[in-house]
Amino acid sequence: MPERRDIEWTTEDEVMFYDTDVGGVVHNLAYLRMIERCRTKLAARIGFDLPGMAATQVYPVVVRTEIDYRMPARLGDLITTRGWIDEWGRARFWCRFEMRREGTGDLFITCRQALAVVQMPEGKIVRLPRDVEGLTP
Amino acid sequence: MPERRDIEWTTEDEVMFYDTDVGGVVHNLAYLRMIERCRTKLAARIGFDLPGMAATQVYPVVVRTEIDYRMPARLGDLITTRGWIDEWGRARFWCRFEMRREGTGDLFITCRQALAVVQMPEGKIVRLPRDVEGLTP
Amino acid sequence: MPERRDIEWTTEDEVMFYDTDVGGVVHNLAYLRMIERCRTKLAARIGFDLPGMAATQVYPVVVRTEIDYRMPARLGDLITTRGWIDEWGRARFWCRFEMRREGTGDLFITCRQALAVVQMPEGKIVRLPRDVEGLTP
Amino acid sequence: MPERRDIEWTTEDEVMFYDTDVGGVVHNLAYLRMIERCRTKLAARIGFDLPGMAATQVYPVVVRTEIDYRMPARLGDLITTRGWIDEWGRARFWCRFEMRREGTGDLFITCRQALAVVQMPEGKIVRLPRDVEGLTP
Repeated sequence: MPERRDIEWTTEDEVMFYDTDVGGVVHNLAYLRMIERCRTKLAARIGFDLPGMAATQVYPVVVRTEIDYRMPARLGDLITTRGWIDEWGRARFWCRFEMRREGTGDLFITCRQALAVVQMPEGKIVRLPRDVEGLTP
Repeated sequence: MPERRDIEWTTEDEVMFYDTDVGGVVHNLAYLRMIERCRTKLAARIGFDLPGMAATQVYPVVVRTEIDYRMPARLGDLITTRGWIDEWGRARFWCRFEMRREGTGDLFITCRQALAVVQMPEGKIVRLPRDVEGLTP
Repeated sequence: MPERRDIEWTTEDEVMFYDTDVGGVVHNLAYLRMIERCRTKLAARIGFDLPGMAATQVYPVVVRTEIDYRMPARLGDLITTRGWIDEWGRARFWCRFEMRREGTGDLFITCRQALAVVQMPEGKIVRLPRDVEGLTP
Repeated sequence: MPERRDIEWTTEDEVMFYDTDVGGVVHNLAYLRMIERCRTKLAARIGFDLPGMAATQVYPVVVRTEIDYRMPARLGDLITTRGWIDEWGRARFWCRFEMRREGTGDLFITCRQALAVVQMPEGKIVRLPRDVEGLTP
Protein backbone atom coordinates (compact mmCIF):
# COMPACT_ATOMS: atom_id res chain seq x y z
CA MET A 1 0.00 0.00 0.00
CA PRO A 2 1.39 3.39 -0.88
CA GLU A 3 1.95 5.52 2.17
CA ARG A 4 0.30 8.91 2.49
CA ARG A 5 2.76 11.63 3.22
CA ASP A 6 0.46 14.58 2.63
CA ILE A 7 1.11 15.88 6.10
CA GLU A 8 4.60 15.45 7.39
CA TRP A 9 7.21 17.12 9.59
CA THR A 10 10.93 16.80 10.13
CA THR A 11 12.86 17.56 13.33
CA GLU A 12 16.56 17.34 14.09
CA ASP A 13 18.45 16.36 17.21
CA GLU A 14 22.10 16.23 18.09
CA VAL A 15 22.81 13.34 20.45
CA MET A 16 23.69 14.68 23.90
CA PHE A 17 25.18 12.92 26.92
CA TYR A 18 21.72 12.63 28.49
CA ASP A 19 20.59 10.64 25.43
CA THR A 20 23.25 7.96 25.88
CA ASP A 21 23.87 5.16 28.34
CA VAL A 22 26.84 3.17 29.61
CA GLY A 23 26.53 0.87 26.59
CA GLY A 24 27.99 3.73 24.56
CA VAL A 25 24.89 4.30 22.44
CA VAL A 26 21.62 6.22 22.59
CA HIS A 27 19.23 4.85 25.19
CA ASN A 28 15.97 3.37 23.87
CA LEU A 29 13.84 5.97 25.70
CA ALA A 30 15.67 8.92 24.16
CA TYR A 31 14.48 8.12 20.64
CA LEU A 32 10.89 8.24 21.85
CA ARG A 33 11.43 11.66 23.39
CA MET A 34 12.79 12.89 20.05
CA ILE A 35 9.81 11.31 18.27
CA GLU A 36 7.44 13.11 20.62
CA ARG A 37 8.80 16.47 19.53
CA CYS A 38 8.33 15.55 15.87
CA ARG A 39 4.82 14.23 16.60
CA THR A 40 3.91 17.40 18.47
CA LYS A 41 4.91 19.57 15.53
CA LEU A 42 3.05 17.21 13.20
CA ALA A 43 -0.08 17.47 15.36
CA ALA A 44 0.16 21.26 15.21
CA ARG A 45 -0.15 20.99 11.44
CA ILE A 46 -3.59 19.41 11.82
CA GLY A 47 -4.84 21.90 14.38
CA PHE A 48 -3.44 20.68 17.70
CA ASP A 49 -1.00 23.42 18.61
CA LEU A 50 0.48 23.48 22.13
CA PRO A 51 -0.98 26.77 23.46
CA GLY A 52 -4.38 25.77 22.07
CA MET A 53 -4.25 22.38 23.75
CA ALA A 54 -3.11 23.87 27.05
CA ALA A 55 -6.22 26.07 26.90
CA THR A 56 -8.82 23.53 25.75
CA GLN A 57 -7.33 20.42 27.40
CA VAL A 58 -8.31 18.52 24.26
CA TYR A 59 -5.36 16.73 22.73
CA PRO A 60 -4.09 13.65 21.00
CA VAL A 61 -2.71 10.95 23.29
CA VAL A 62 -0.64 7.97 22.29
CA VAL A 63 -2.62 4.75 22.67
CA ARG A 64 -0.10 2.38 21.04
CA THR A 65 3.56 2.55 20.08
CA GLU A 66 5.49 0.10 17.91
CA ILE A 67 9.17 0.89 17.56
CA ASP A 68 12.03 -1.01 15.94
CA TYR A 69 15.59 -0.30 16.97
CA ARG A 70 17.62 -1.02 13.81
CA MET A 71 20.99 0.54 14.41
CA PRO A 72 22.30 2.48 17.42
CA ALA A 73 23.07 6.19 17.24
CA ARG A 74 26.00 7.60 19.20
CA LEU A 75 27.13 10.74 21.00
CA GLY A 76 27.29 13.69 18.61
CA ASP A 77 25.28 12.04 15.83
CA LEU A 78 22.84 14.32 14.07
CA ILE A 79 19.47 12.57 13.87
CA THR A 80 16.75 13.54 11.42
CA THR A 81 13.28 12.41 12.49
CA ARG A 82 10.63 12.43 9.79
CA GLY A 83 7.02 11.88 10.77
CA TRP A 84 3.88 11.65 8.71
CA ILE A 85 0.22 10.77 9.12
CA ASP A 86 -0.40 7.30 7.81
CA GLU A 87 -4.02 6.37 8.55
CA TRP A 88 -6.99 8.43 9.65
CA GLY A 89 -9.91 6.65 11.28
CA ARG A 90 -12.95 7.60 13.34
CA ALA A 91 -11.50 7.21 16.79
CA ARG A 92 -7.77 7.09 16.16
CA PHE A 93 -5.08 7.96 13.66
CA TRP A 94 -1.66 6.50 13.00
CA CYS A 95 1.63 8.32 12.56
CA ARG A 96 4.84 6.85 11.20
CA PHE A 97 8.38 7.94 11.91
CA GLU A 98 11.82 7.27 10.51
CA MET A 99 15.00 8.37 12.24
CA ARG A 100 18.17 8.59 10.16
CA ARG A 101 21.73 9.83 10.51
CA GLU A 102 22.04 13.13 8.78
CA GLY A 103 24.33 12.88 5.82
CA THR A 104 24.72 9.11 5.48
CA GLY A 105 20.99 8.41 5.80
CA ASP A 106 21.63 5.33 7.93
CA LEU A 107 18.33 4.15 9.37
CA PHE A 108 18.29 4.04 13.19
CA ILE A 109 14.60 3.71 13.96
CA THR A 110 11.22 3.01 12.44
CA CYS A 111 8.17 3.68 14.57
CA ARG A 112 4.40 3.70 14.35
CA GLN A 113 2.07 5.31 16.86
CA ALA A 114 -1.70 5.30 17.19
CA LEU A 115 -3.29 8.36 18.74
CA ALA A 116 -6.74 9.09 20.06
CA VAL A 117 -8.04 12.57 20.79
CA VAL A 118 -9.24 13.03 24.36
CA GLN A 119 -10.81 15.66 26.55
CA MET A 120 -8.72 15.87 29.70
CA PRO A 121 -8.75 15.51 32.65
CA GLU A 122 -11.78 13.21 32.19
CA GLY A 123 -10.00 11.27 29.46
CA LYS A 124 -13.15 11.14 27.30
CA ILE A 125 -12.43 10.14 23.71
CA VAL A 126 -13.45 12.69 21.09
CA ARG A 127 -14.60 11.65 17.60
CA LEU A 128 -12.10 12.63 14.89
CA PRO A 129 -13.19 15.08 12.21
CA ARG A 130 -13.62 13.47 8.77
CA ASP A 131 -11.80 16.16 6.91
CA VAL A 132 -8.48 17.49 7.92
CA GLU A 133 -7.03 20.27 5.86
CA GLY A 134 -4.11 19.00 3.84
CA LEU A 135 -4.97 15.33 4.28
CA THR A 136 -6.26 14.03 0.95
CA PRO A 137 -8.76 11.17 1.10
CA MET B 1 -1.57 -20.24 23.42
CA PRO B 2 -0.73 -20.58 27.08
CA GLU B 3 1.87 -18.07 28.16
CA ARG B 4 5.06 -19.20 29.81
CA ARG B 5 5.58 -17.50 33.10
CA ASP B 6 8.38 -19.73 34.38
CA ILE B 7 10.63 -16.73 34.81
CA GLU B 8 8.95 -13.58 36.00
CA TRP B 9 9.57 -10.53 38.14
CA THR B 10 7.44 -7.83 39.76
CA THR B 11 8.45 -4.27 40.53
CA GLU B 12 6.50 -1.44 42.13
CA ASP B 13 6.49 2.29 41.52
CA GLU B 14 4.70 5.18 43.15
CA VAL B 15 3.82 7.83 40.59
CA MET B 16 5.96 10.92 41.20
CA PHE B 17 5.65 14.45 39.76
CA TYR B 18 8.40 13.69 37.24
CA ASP B 19 6.26 10.83 35.89
CA THR B 20 3.31 13.10 35.07
CA ASP B 21 2.62 15.78 32.49
CA VAL B 22 0.35 18.80 32.17
CA GLY B 23 -2.46 16.51 30.99
CA GLY B 24 -2.76 15.40 34.61
CA VAL B 25 -1.69 11.81 33.97
CA VAL B 26 1.47 9.72 33.69
CA HIS B 27 3.50 10.57 30.60
CA ASN B 28 3.87 7.78 28.03
CA LEU B 29 7.67 7.64 28.44
CA ALA B 30 7.49 7.14 32.20
CA TYR B 31 5.82 3.73 31.88
CA LEU B 32 8.70 2.54 29.70
CA ARG B 33 11.23 3.66 32.29
CA MET B 34 9.34 1.64 34.92
CA ILE B 35 9.23 -1.33 32.55
CA GLU B 36 12.98 -1.09 32.06
CA ARG B 37 13.58 -1.59 35.76
CA CYS B 38 11.34 -4.65 35.76
CA ARG B 39 13.05 -5.97 32.63
CA THR B 40 16.48 -5.43 34.15
CA LYS B 41 15.58 -7.47 37.22
CA LEU B 42 14.03 -10.11 34.98
CA ALA B 43 17.24 -10.28 32.90
CA ALA B 44 19.25 -10.73 36.08
CA ARG B 45 17.25 -13.88 36.74
CA ILE B 46 18.60 -15.41 33.53
CA GLY B 47 22.19 -14.43 34.13
CA PHE B 48 22.41 -10.80 33.00
CA ASP B 49 23.07 -8.99 36.25
CA LEU B 50 24.10 -5.33 36.15
CA PRO B 51 27.63 -5.54 37.60
CA GLY B 52 28.34 -8.54 35.35
CA MET B 53 27.14 -6.68 32.27
CA ALA B 54 29.14 -3.58 33.17
CA ALA B 55 32.23 -5.82 33.27
CA THR B 56 31.66 -7.97 30.17
CA GLN B 57 29.82 -5.36 28.04
CA VAL B 58 27.59 -8.21 26.86
CA TYR B 59 23.95 -7.47 27.44
CA PRO B 60 20.41 -7.68 26.15
CA VAL B 61 19.24 -4.70 24.14
CA VAL B 62 15.69 -3.89 23.16
CA VAL B 63 15.17 -4.35 19.42
CA ARG B 64 11.41 -3.86 19.34
CA THR B 65 8.77 -2.47 21.71
CA GLU B 66 5.00 -2.75 21.38
CA ILE B 67 3.08 -0.94 24.10
CA ASP B 68 -0.63 -0.31 24.58
CA TYR B 69 -1.79 2.53 26.79
CA ARG B 70 -5.13 1.29 28.17
CA MET B 71 -5.91 3.58 31.07
CA PRO B 72 -3.93 6.49 32.49
CA ALA B 73 -2.29 6.34 35.91
CA ARG B 74 -2.15 9.44 38.08
CA LEU B 75 0.00 11.15 40.69
CA GLY B 76 0.36 8.97 43.79
CA ASP B 77 -0.90 5.78 42.15
CA LEU B 78 0.94 2.64 43.13
CA ILE B 79 1.82 0.72 39.98
CA THR B 80 2.70 -2.96 39.95
CA THR B 81 4.70 -4.01 36.88
CA ARG B 82 4.85 -7.74 36.22
CA GLY B 83 7.19 -9.03 33.55
CA TRP B 84 7.86 -12.51 32.23
CA ILE B 85 9.74 -14.22 29.45
CA ASP B 86 7.36 -15.20 26.72
CA GLU B 87 9.38 -16.62 23.84
CA TRP B 88 12.97 -17.76 23.58
CA GLY B 89 14.56 -17.97 20.14
CA ARG B 90 18.05 -18.25 18.71
CA ALA B 91 18.82 -14.61 18.22
CA ARG B 92 16.16 -12.88 20.29
CA PHE B 93 13.71 -13.40 23.12
CA TRP B 94 10.43 -11.71 23.98
CA CYS B 95 9.29 -10.33 27.32
CA ARG B 96 5.77 -9.33 28.26
CA PHE B 97 4.67 -6.80 30.83
CA GLU B 98 1.46 -5.81 32.55
CA MET B 99 1.14 -2.69 34.67
CA ARG B 100 -1.74 -2.50 37.11
CA ARG B 101 -2.96 -0.28 39.92
CA GLU B 102 -2.13 -1.89 43.20
CA GLY B 103 -5.27 -2.84 45.07
CA THR B 104 -7.90 -2.44 42.36
CA GLY B 105 -5.89 -4.30 39.70
CA ASP B 106 -6.96 -1.82 37.00
CA LEU B 107 -4.90 -2.47 33.89
CA PHE B 108 -2.88 0.56 32.74
CA ILE B 109 -0.45 -0.95 30.27
CA THR B 110 0.34 -4.09 28.29
CA CYS B 111 3.71 -4.30 26.61
CA ARG B 112 5.87 -6.71 24.65
CA GLN B 113 9.56 -6.27 23.98
CA ALA B 114 11.99 -8.26 21.84
CA LEU B 115 15.59 -8.35 23.01
CA ALA B 116 18.81 -9.44 21.35
CA VAL B 117 22.04 -10.05 23.22
CA VAL B 118 24.95 -7.98 21.96
CA GLN B 119 28.63 -7.51 22.61
CA MET B 120 29.21 -3.79 23.05
CA PRO B 121 30.59 -1.42 21.94
CA GLU B 122 30.80 -3.28 18.57
CA GLY B 123 27.11 -4.17 18.77
CA LYS B 124 27.77 -7.72 17.54
CA ILE B 125 24.80 -10.02 18.14
CA VAL B 126 25.51 -13.05 20.34
CA ARG B 127 23.70 -16.37 19.82
CA LEU B 128 21.33 -17.15 22.72
CA PRO B 129 22.01 -20.23 24.82
CA ARG B 130 19.48 -23.03 24.24
CA ASP B 131 18.96 -23.78 27.89
CA VAL B 132 18.31 -21.17 30.46
CA GLU B 133 17.96 -22.29 34.02
CA GLY B 134 14.39 -21.99 35.15
CA LEU B 135 12.99 -21.71 31.62
CA THR B 136 11.24 -24.99 30.81
CA PRO B 137 11.11 -25.96 27.14
CA MET C 1 25.31 24.79 63.69
CA PRO C 2 23.89 21.40 64.58
CA GLU C 3 21.63 20.09 61.87
CA ARG C 4 18.04 19.24 62.62
CA ARG C 5 17.15 15.75 61.56
CA ASP C 6 13.83 15.50 63.37
CA ILE C 7 12.04 14.74 60.14
CA GLU C 8 13.92 12.57 57.72
CA TRP C 9 13.40 9.92 55.09
CA THR C 10 15.55 7.38 53.28
CA THR C 11 15.00 5.96 49.80
CA GLU C 12 17.00 3.42 47.84
CA ASP C 13 17.76 3.13 44.14
CA GLU C 14 19.64 0.59 42.08
CA VAL C 15 21.43 2.27 39.19
CA MET C 16 19.77 1.31 35.90
CA PHE C 17 20.94 1.79 32.31
CA TYR C 18 18.69 4.84 31.96
CA ASP C 19 20.57 6.47 34.87
CA THR C 20 23.96 6.23 33.15
CA ASP C 21 25.60 7.93 30.19
CA VAL C 22 28.35 7.15 27.71
CA GLY C 23 30.92 8.37 30.23
CA GLY C 24 30.27 5.11 32.10
CA VAL C 25 28.78 6.75 35.18
CA VAL C 26 25.45 8.03 36.47
CA HIS C 27 24.27 11.13 34.61
CA ASN C 28 23.99 14.31 36.68
CA LEU C 29 20.21 14.58 36.12
CA ALA C 30 19.52 11.07 37.42
CA TYR C 31 20.63 11.90 40.96
CA LEU C 32 18.12 14.74 41.05
CA ARG C 33 15.33 12.41 39.98
CA MET C 34 16.27 10.07 42.84
CA ILE C 35 16.38 13.02 45.23
CA GLU C 36 12.90 14.06 44.12
CA ARG C 37 11.49 10.73 45.22
CA CYS C 38 13.13 11.08 48.62
CA ARG C 39 11.92 14.68 48.91
CA THR C 40 8.37 13.68 47.98
CA LYS C 41 8.28 11.06 50.73
CA LEU C 42 9.80 13.58 53.13
CA ALA C 43 7.12 16.13 52.20
CA ALA C 44 4.44 13.52 52.87
CA ARG C 45 5.72 13.31 56.45
CA ILE C 46 4.84 16.98 56.99
CA GLY C 47 1.40 16.74 55.40
CA PHE C 48 2.03 17.02 51.67
CA ASP C 49 1.01 13.58 50.46
CA LEU C 50 0.63 12.99 46.71
CA PRO C 51 -3.10 12.22 46.50
CA GLY C 52 -3.82 15.20 48.75
CA MET C 53 -1.72 17.51 46.60
CA ALA C 54 -3.32 16.25 43.41
CA ALA C 55 -6.69 17.19 44.92
CA THR C 56 -5.85 20.57 46.46
CA GLN C 57 -3.20 21.67 43.93
CA VAL C 58 -1.29 23.12 46.87
CA TYR C 59 2.23 21.79 47.01
CA PRO C 60 5.87 22.50 47.70
CA VAL C 61 7.93 23.52 44.69
CA VAL C 62 11.68 23.69 44.46
CA VAL C 63 12.88 27.29 44.26
CA ARG C 64 16.62 26.62 44.53
CA THR C 65 18.88 23.60 44.24
CA GLU C 66 22.54 23.35 45.21
CA ILE C 67 24.13 20.01 44.43
CA ASP C 68 27.72 18.79 44.68
CA TYR C 69 28.83 15.80 42.64
CA ARG C 70 31.57 14.23 44.79
CA MET C 71 32.10 10.77 43.33
CA PRO C 72 30.37 9.05 40.43
CA ALA C 73 28.05 6.09 40.94
CA ARG C 74 27.99 3.30 38.36
CA LEU C 75 25.64 0.75 36.83
CA GLY C 76 24.30 -1.62 39.47
CA ASP C 77 25.34 0.49 42.45
CA LEU C 78 22.83 0.61 45.27
CA ILE C 79 22.33 4.22 46.31
CA THR C 80 20.87 5.27 49.62
CA THR C 81 19.42 8.77 49.61
CA ARG C 82 18.81 10.32 53.00
CA GLY C 83 16.86 13.56 53.21
CA TRP C 84 15.93 15.75 56.15
CA ILE C 85 14.42 19.14 56.85
CA ASP C 86 17.12 21.59 57.72
CA GLU C 87 15.53 25.01 58.08
CA TRP C 88 11.93 26.12 58.39
CA GLY C 89 11.07 29.72 57.57
CA ARG C 90 7.95 31.75 56.84
CA ALA C 91 7.92 31.46 53.07
CA ARG C 92 10.33 28.64 52.38
CA PHE C 93 12.05 25.66 53.94
CA TRP C 94 15.29 23.89 53.19
CA CYS C 95 15.91 20.17 52.78
CA ARG C 96 19.29 18.47 52.74
CA PHE C 97 20.23 15.21 51.06
CA GLU C 98 23.15 12.81 51.13
CA MET C 99 23.52 10.00 48.62
CA ARG C 100 25.84 7.13 49.55
CA ARG C 101 26.79 3.73 48.23
CA GLU C 102 25.04 1.10 50.27
CA GLY C 103 27.51 -0.96 52.18
CA THR C 104 30.67 1.10 51.80
CA GLY C 105 28.98 4.40 52.64
CA ASP C 106 30.98 6.21 49.93
CA LEU C 107 29.54 9.69 49.49
CA PHE C 108 28.33 10.41 45.95
CA ILE C 109 26.25 13.53 46.40
CA THR C 110 25.39 16.27 48.84
CA CYS C 111 22.46 18.50 48.00
CA ARG C 112 20.39 21.31 49.48
CA GLN C 113 17.02 22.45 48.16
CA ALA C 114 14.80 25.37 49.12
CA LEU C 115 11.06 24.87 48.70
CA ALA C 116 8.13 27.24 48.74
CA VAL C 117 4.52 26.13 49.05
CA VAL C 118 2.32 27.32 46.22
CA GLN C 119 -1.29 27.21 45.12
CA MET C 120 -1.33 25.98 41.53
CA PRO C 121 -2.06 26.72 38.77
CA GLU C 122 -1.86 30.41 39.81
CA GLY C 123 1.53 29.84 41.45
CA LYS C 124 0.55 31.94 44.49
CA ILE C 125 2.93 31.44 47.43
CA VAL C 126 1.29 30.17 50.61
CA ARG C 127 2.57 31.14 54.07
CA LEU C 128 4.14 28.16 55.89
CA PRO C 129 2.55 27.01 59.13
CA ARG C 130 4.64 27.79 62.21
CA ASP C 131 4.25 24.38 63.76
CA VAL C 132 4.79 21.19 61.92
CA GLU C 133 4.21 18.00 63.80
CA GLY C 134 7.50 16.28 64.47
CA LEU C 135 9.60 19.36 63.79
CA THR C 136 10.90 20.63 67.14
CA PRO C 137 11.59 24.34 67.36
CA MET D 1 32.51 42.24 39.21
CA PRO D 2 31.81 42.54 35.52
CA GLU D 3 30.91 39.23 34.00
CA ARG D 4 32.95 37.81 31.17
CA ARG D 5 30.87 36.92 28.21
CA ASP D 6 33.68 36.41 25.75
CA ILE D 7 32.54 32.87 25.07
CA GLU D 8 28.81 32.34 25.03
CA TRP D 9 26.14 30.27 23.35
CA THR D 10 22.38 30.44 22.98
CA THR D 11 19.98 27.53 22.50
CA GLU D 12 16.22 27.47 22.09
CA ASP D 13 13.59 25.02 23.28
CA GLU D 14 9.86 24.82 22.83
CA VAL D 15 8.21 23.35 25.93
CA MET D 16 6.86 19.89 25.15
CA PHE D 17 4.52 17.65 27.15
CA TYR D 18 7.47 15.64 28.45
CA ASP D 19 8.88 18.86 29.97
CA THR D 20 5.78 19.52 32.07
CA ASP D 21 4.20 17.93 35.13
CA VAL D 22 0.76 17.67 36.67
CA GLY D 23 1.28 21.06 38.34
CA GLY D 24 0.77 22.58 34.89
CA VAL D 25 4.30 23.93 34.55
CA VAL D 26 7.75 22.82 33.42
CA HIS D 27 9.27 20.26 35.76
CA ASN D 28 12.44 21.33 37.58
CA LEU D 29 14.56 18.61 35.91
CA ALA D 30 13.60 19.68 32.39
CA TYR D 31 15.34 23.06 32.69
CA LEU D 32 18.57 21.28 33.56
CA ARG D 33 18.30 19.07 30.49
CA MET D 34 17.88 22.21 28.35
CA ILE D 35 20.86 23.79 30.12
CA GLU D 36 22.96 20.72 29.36
CA ARG D 37 22.44 21.18 25.66
CA CYS D 38 23.48 24.82 25.88
CA ARG D 39 26.51 23.86 28.01
CA THR D 40 27.53 21.16 25.55
CA LYS D 41 27.53 23.63 22.66
CA LEU D 42 29.41 26.11 24.84
CA ALA D 43 32.03 23.46 25.66
CA ALA D 44 32.45 22.74 21.97
CA ARG D 45 33.48 26.36 21.52
CA ILE D 46 36.47 25.81 23.82
CA GLY D 47 37.54 22.56 22.20
CA PHE D 48 35.29 19.92 23.78
CA ASP D 49 33.23 18.79 20.82
CA LEU D 50 31.08 15.66 21.16
CA PRO D 51 32.75 13.37 18.60
CA GLY D 52 36.16 14.37 19.96
CA MET D 53 35.09 13.59 23.53
CA ALA D 54 33.58 10.27 22.52
CA ALA D 55 36.98 9.39 21.03
CA THR D 56 39.31 10.65 23.77
CA GLN D 57 37.01 10.06 26.75
CA VAL D 58 38.29 13.36 28.14
CA TYR D 59 35.48 15.72 28.95
CA PRO D 60 34.08 18.32 31.31
CA VAL D 61 31.83 17.00 34.07
CA VAL D 62 29.56 19.01 36.29
CA VAL D 63 30.86 19.08 39.85
CA ARG D 64 28.38 21.61 41.27
CA THR D 65 25.07 23.10 40.16
CA GLU D 66 23.27 26.08 41.69
CA ILE D 67 19.92 26.83 40.10
CA ASP D 68 17.19 29.31 40.98
CA TYR D 69 13.63 28.74 39.78
CA ARG D 70 12.24 32.26 39.41
CA MET D 71 9.10 31.87 37.33
CA PRO D 72 7.55 28.76 35.83
CA ALA D 73 7.45 28.16 32.07
CA ARG D 74 4.45 26.45 30.51
CA LEU D 75 3.50 24.16 27.62
CA GLY D 76 4.34 25.78 24.30
CA ASP D 77 6.58 28.49 25.73
CA LEU D 78 9.68 29.24 23.70
CA ILE D 79 12.68 29.30 26.02
CA THR D 80 15.97 30.95 25.16
CA THR D 81 18.89 29.62 27.18
CA ARG D 82 22.00 31.75 27.15
CA GLY D 83 25.20 30.37 28.64
CA TRP D 84 28.65 31.86 29.07
CA ILE D 85 31.93 31.07 30.77
CA ASP D 86 32.24 33.05 33.93
CA GLU D 87 35.41 31.95 35.73
CA TRP D 88 38.38 29.91 34.58
CA GLY D 89 40.59 28.30 37.19
CA ARG D 90 43.24 25.62 37.33
CA ALA D 91 41.06 22.64 38.11
CA ARG D 92 37.57 23.86 37.34
CA PHE D 93 35.65 26.51 35.47
CA TRP D 94 32.23 28.05 36.01
CA CYS D 95 29.44 28.59 33.51
CA ARG D 96 26.40 30.78 33.99
CA PHE D 97 23.01 30.42 32.36
CA GLU D 98 19.87 32.50 32.00
CA MET D 99 16.63 31.11 30.64
CA ARG D 100 14.06 33.57 29.36
CA ARG D 101 10.76 33.53 27.53
CA GLU D 102 11.35 34.46 23.94
CA GLY D 103 9.67 37.71 23.09
CA THR D 104 8.79 39.01 26.56
CA GLY D 105 12.21 38.24 28.04
CA ASP D 106 10.63 37.05 31.30
CA LEU D 107 13.33 35.40 33.41
CA PHE D 108 12.54 31.78 34.29
CA ILE D 109 15.89 30.49 35.54
CA THR D 110 19.34 31.57 36.60
CA CYS D 111 21.96 28.88 37.02
CA ARG D 112 25.67 28.45 37.73
CA GLN D 113 27.64 25.27 37.19
CA ALA D 114 31.22 24.35 38.04
CA LEU D 115 32.93 21.86 35.74
CA ALA D 116 36.10 19.86 36.02
CA VAL D 117 37.77 18.13 33.09
CA VAL D 118 38.26 14.41 33.64
CA GLN D 119 39.76 11.42 31.86
CA MET D 120 37.11 8.71 31.86
CA PRO D 121 36.49 5.99 32.81
CA GLU D 122 39.12 6.44 35.55
CA GLY D 123 37.66 9.81 36.47
CA LYS D 124 41.13 11.39 36.83
CA ILE D 125 41.00 15.19 36.91
CA VAL D 126 42.95 16.91 34.15
CA ARG D 127 44.63 20.30 34.69
CA LEU D 128 42.91 23.07 32.67
CA PRO D 129 44.93 24.86 30.00
CA ARG D 130 45.80 28.45 30.91
CA ASP D 131 44.87 29.91 27.57
CA VAL D 132 41.66 29.17 25.82
CA GLU D 133 41.15 30.71 22.46
CA GLY D 134 38.54 33.40 22.65
CA LEU D 135 38.69 33.71 26.44
CA THR D 136 40.45 37.00 27.24
CA PRO D 137 42.34 37.14 30.53
